[in-house]
Amino acid sequence: MTEPVILVGVDGGGTRCRARARQLDGTLIGECVTGTANLLAGVETALSNIVAAVTGALEAGGLGAADLNRCLVGMGLAGANIPELADRFLASSLPFRRTALEMDGWIACRGAHPGGNGAIAILGTGTAYVANIGGRFITIGGWGFHVGDQASGAWLGHQALRQSLLAFDGIIAATPLSDAILAHFDNKPDAMVAFGKTALPRDYGEFAPLVLDRADAGDPIATAIVDEAVGDIEASLRRLASLGADRISLFGGLAPRYAPRLSPAISAMIVPPASDALEGALQLAATLLPKEAFA
Amino acid sequence: MTEPVILVGVDGGGTRCRARARQLDGTLIGECVTGTANLLAGVETALSNIVAAVTGALEAGGLGAADLNRCLVGMGLAGANIPELADRFLASSLPFRRTALEMDGWIACRGAHPGGNGAIAILGTGTAYVANIGGRFITIGGWGFHVGDQASGAWLGHQALRQSLLAFDGIIAATPLSDAILAHFDNKPDAMVAFGKTALPRDYGEFAPLVLDRADAGDPIATAIVDEAVGDIEASLRRLASLGADRISLFGGLAPRYAPRLSPAISAMIVPPASDALEGALQLAATLLPKEAFA
Repeated sequence: MTEPVILVGVDGGGTRCRARARQLDGTLIGECVTGTANLLAGVETALSNIVAAVTGALEAGGLGAADLNRCLVGMGLAGANIPELADRFLASSLPFRRTALEMDGWIACRGAHPGGNGAIAILGTGTAYVANIGGRFITIGGWGFHVGDQASGAWLGHQALRQSLLAFDGIIAATPLSDAILAHFDNKPDAMVAFGKTALPRDYGEFAPLVLDRADAGDPIATAIVDEAVGDIEASLRRLASLGADRISLFGGLAPRYAPRLSPAISAMIVPPASDALEGALQLAATLLPKEAFA
Repeated sequence: MTEPVILVGVDGGGTRCRARARQLDGTLIGECVTGTANLLAGVETALSNIVAAVTGALEAGGLGAADLNRCLVGMGLAGANIPELADRFLASSLPFRRTALEMDGWIACRGAHPGGNGAIAILGTGTAYVANIGGRFITIGGWGFHVGDQASGAWLGHQALRQSLLAFDGIIAATPLSDAILAHFDNKPDAMVAFGKTALPRDYGEFAPLVLDRADAGDPIATAIVDEAVGDIEASLRRLASLGADRISLFGGLAPRYAPRLSPAISAMIVPPASDALEGALQLAATLLPKEAFA
């Protein structure tokens, strides 16, 4: 007798890979967390961490590597939007019965809105927006720090440094925010210039909580930066609403900071996510079942 | 009998070093152009190109290397605002009788306003502003692409790329500018993202003429970008005016593009530069004469 298939969801991001395995009836088998599965960090590394995470999830429920070929795996991976990487990944020797791959943001959107027609905003060191409109996914933003990521933590910090130099030069009035940022660099603009030459998005993002705190306290420079960021977030969400998204869930470390600042019209559309990204990945895995029935 | 001293002006920038030598009575001896003398490109390289330029200027007038020790040299060098580099340069074995060193922007300001109390705006791939207020130099901006250089060619191009991605995502309305920029990247945002990961300021600056041309034609995205840039330039110039600068000269490749866009109040202060940066460097060289008289 053929053993029944197992549904597995995989959420692969830049710092960790999570897997969750369930029986067909929904019974949890187990979960496991390993290292990065961002395809941009290397297809081989991602594959290795994914296989380890799925194996670990099986082992947590008393199964093991011998059961990998029973698994229908739905995965959302950072970097899966780059066709060349996705193709290389799917062409590698996957030990699973079947695999469905999409962007990490898509499984988060599936998990948040299992009924479809919902959108998510990912508001962290970077920013991106995904909507599921009747089963069709639309992604906007997510272009990264250099040419996009407005309203991200990196963007907030970067703007704060720029404005602080304008305050240093007397072009705009200094505020507690600009004073604090200049003090961080010992009031030496050259130190900030040197920082900027090598700073990664996460380095700029370190200043984001300070910017948001100062905006809460009414600091004019901080308020102007955060107001512009909120305007960018709302413009992106209005775009997704105009395409048919009728509810929105917020993700990412900055979500709790931005939520209270959204306009009533947008706030009225905000709902908590119905489930997490791994459940979205499991929904994706379940889309493989019809193929299985005719195999 | 001791041979009379020679006055030499040196203007050392990122792409070339120019030198001009004059007799004490102002008679031109000669000029010469060599390669970069930006201290950030290396103190040894700068020194080598400066000595070659000064020697060449002397040779153009029938003198030569044997006369270097008669030269009072005033030099404006890119990177001279960084104390560690300036100190290393001045501590190296200079073949001149005396040397005075300052930022390249300062000699440009001296040349533009020999009478003092004037300001200059340098509007090129980067932006910087210098004022001479009663012999005291004030520099604002010039912090570079990563944390400053608002309104620069690099800034214009960078903003245009960001806005074009917003148009691609349907967050703002597309315009001829955003269409042209997306077409440059074969309408593939990933190509723009890849460009942004390695683009230098001059790479972004390649798009500046297009942005300005489209603004002239009334393109809404281009107009918004250029209007913000003009606002930044005016804020900087108002700051220098408030400190006592009563006239302003514009330098850099973008000066002719911005000049017609300045407000009447700022435009009324614009004057052509009285002379070039090399004449400013010669003025700096002349400040060494009193020391010579007591040598």
